[in-house]
Amino acid sequence: MGKTLIGSAIIGQSGGPTSVINSSILGAIKTCFSKEEITRVYGAANGIIGVLNDELYDLNLEDRDELELLKYTPASALGSCRHKLLDPDIDDFEYKRILEVFKKYNVRYFFYNGGNDSMDTCNKISKYCIKNGYECRIIGIPKTIDNDLYGTDHCPGFASAAKYIATSIAEISLDTRVYDYGNISIVEIMGRNAGWLCASASLSNLNGVGADLIYLPEVPFDLEKFIDDVNDIYEAKGKVIVAVSEGIKDSEGKYISEYANKTKEKDKFGHQQMGGLAQFLANQVKFRTGAKIRGIELSLLQRCAAHLASKTDYEEAYMAGVAAVENAVNGISDMMVSFKCKRGAKLSDYKCEIELLPLEMVANYEKKVPIEWINSEGNNVTKEFIDYVLPLIQGETELPKVNGLPRFAHLKKIVMR
Amino acid sequence: MGKTLIGSAIIGQSGGPTSVINSSILGAIKTCFSKEEITRVYGAANGIIGVLNDELYDLNLEDRDELELLKYTPASALGSCRHKLLDPDIDDFEYKRILEVFKKYNVRYFFYNGGNDSMDTCNKISKYCIKNGYECRIIGIPKTIDNDLYGTDHCPGFASAAKYIATSIAEISLDTRVYDYGNISIVEIMGRNAGWLCASASLSNLNGVGADLIYLPEVPFDLEKFIDDVNDIYEAKGKVIVAVSEGIKDSEGKYISEYANKTKEKDKFGHQQMGGLAQFLANQVKFRTGAKIRGIELSLLQRCAAHLASKTDYEEAYMAGVAAVENAVNGISDMMVSFKCKRGAKLSDYKCEIELLPLEMVANYEKKVPIEWINSEGNNVTKEFIDYVLPLIQGETELPKVNGLPRFAHLKKIVMR
Repeated sequence: MGKTLIGSAIIGQSGGPTSVINSSILGAIKTCFSKEEITRVYGAANGIIGVLNDELYDLNLEDRDELELLKYTPASALGSCRHKLLDPDIDDFEYKRILEVFKKYNVRYFFYNGGNDSMDTCNKISKYCIKNGYECRIIGIPKTIDNDLYGTDHCPGFASAAKYIATSIAEISLDTRVYDYGNISIVEIMGRNAGWLCASASLSNLNGVGADLIYLPEVPFDLEKFIDDVNDIYEAKGKVIVAVSEGIKDSEGKYISEYANKTKEKDKFGHQQMGGLAQFLANQVKFRTGAKIRGIELSLLQRCAAHLASKTDYEEAYMAGVAAVENAVNGISDMMVSFKCKRGAKLSDYKCEIELLPLEMVANYEKKVPIEWINSEGNNVTKEFIDYVLPLIQGETELPKVNGLPRFAHLKKIVMR
Repeated sequence: MGKTLIGSAIIGQSGGPTSVINSSILGAIKTCFSKEEITRVYGAANGIIGVLNDELYDLNLEDRDELELLKYTPASALGSCRHKLLDPDIDDFEYKRILEVFKKYNVRYFFYNGGNDSMDTCNKISKYCIKNGYECRIIGIPKTIDNDLYGTDHCPGFASAAKYIATSIAEISLDTRVYDYGNISIVEIMGRNAGWLCASASLSNLNGVGADLIYLPEVPFDLEKFIDDVNDIYEAKGKVIVAVSEGIKDSEGKYISEYANKTKEKDKFGHQQMGGLAQFLANQVKFRTGAKIRGIELSLLQRCAAHLASKTDYEEAYMAGVAAVENAVNGISDMMVSFKCKRGAKLSDYKCEIELLPLEMVANYEKKVPIEWINSEGNNVTKEFIDYVLPLIQGETELPKVNGLPRFAHLKKIVMR
């Protein structure tokens, strides 16, 4: 238990949204409300951009029942950003500004909910505060559908995306089997450098309808081998479902999607923008097999389909938000909340506990699917992967419906002036 | 009550699948099982193709618990086809073959589950049997996500697709609002000539997050007006969600998707294959606004996402299957089951009853969204549309899950030889 620190808290969200990201901030907000040490709770409008712009929402003014809906509401309710802070040794003007805003509102707690790049932001601010002797307890709350954060068993948001992907692949698989002619479907799934999401297309095979072939960025992609793989299954079964990660690369490390003649725009973190891959591969296979073939992009829905969120996922996301605040109030700082999990023979043996990891250990590392979990052909995953993911996708959402449609949270977002 | 007719029944499915199409055949199969007049129940493998090929599944051999799962299983479980029968006055060889197979198995009941083209098939077979003095009671069971069958209040399958579309649009809408920069999303929705599905993108506005603009095939599409519409909302709000029907056409009746330089393959009914429209329109708008813009295709999931099926829809689909068999046993033939509905001030005032319509009244007509239900700007729908659809999407699926994933029906499909 560290010394008592009294002041206000800022909660921010950054990076791509997930189905359960708001469950984390709900956990954090409610825990803040319950703490005497925390005098006021602010939401940063669009993550660190909101701090830089002194645009903070007064969360104490939100309706409590509306806040509760955050548990089931996808997509960063406080707004997000993809803003990369400069190295403070090169230029620290943004850090000075952040400190100025922290001081203005006596911010002593800063909780940042995001993925790799957000943990980098969180780490840099934390180190800057320490270096400048400003006492502020800073904790990262993980989220990313990509599941690529280092050190944690898994990341909140991943499991709901995996559940959506596995369910959708099962449904697409049934749909594409109905006709009396052959059919090949190539489904493109998010994941720039790590194949966790794409690998999840394997899960529905447990119930008899899933992907036949799975290609992850962890294994170099060989177009000729791919066409042979598809053709072999097509000849044998007449119907093929292929899941490809948007981030598959050839043996020289070049993204296959680049061959798809797509825009080569990069985002602010220098990441290549992806897309159009499924159709490109479909065309290659069509040329060879002459089969009826369709490219399908799961697009945004895989990260925002809260109607299919995993209950395990949103409960853990909530727990991560609670743990961030509890630990900060108890004196912990400069850490990210992470999960340590145990799995057993039965799904119900699964246990998830909180651990804390130093931010600098996490920032900017990417956790990939272990090579041992990919089959020797490089076109599917092994039972180890299934055993790892399956406990995470258990349980259904309790998302309230009005008019037969989701009733998501609408925050007032009253800006401090 | 007609005279007693004893014999076997064939049930077939044809056309594009839906989320609830198997609920209809479950209703039909179980009712057949309960009737003394019906000696044996066969499933046609891939619709009328299965009859022509003498490839019939013996449904009496299926496990009853497995059959029950059909209520929640998407995509024609018996297999489908898109086979157009010739006009029997031109060449009746296929009809002779059908009659031969009917006689071989003493088929006295024929139930065909499909959309417009399938009702045409059903009508032609019915008329051929009458003309040739072969007593067989033939009833069409409607299904189509397109909701374009003539004479019925609505079609089984439409409401589940509408619920999926409205839910997905709400989730996409939240997802695309998270960043601090402007964003335009163009979502392409199925519907070749009727805009019922695309119009359903309006529903989630009831809960505060839906499409801003909606373009249906019923109104000529003007690209310049479209770009102006999008730009106006972009300037005002910074975020725009547009729903476009795949079948929008210009004032000369040319599909806009044809300008998208897509394949001009036609299917066997002469319908133009659609696709790639969202990206084409996105490019047009990007050129003008410079905004960050994304084209999204809902693709197959809108017709097979049984995990989001409307309970009202699958219960009505089931009821349609039951009614087909009950009426046939009672002496009715040459008809399609249809719905006559009452709506009141409250959602719970909704009532749906069965009516029967002559097959020739239904076959080949397409029911479009009434022009009065489209706003004067031609870019959204009116309250009449909402009042029409809303009762249909009520209630959630009870789809059983195993491993946190859907457990769909797996039929044995034992072929008669």
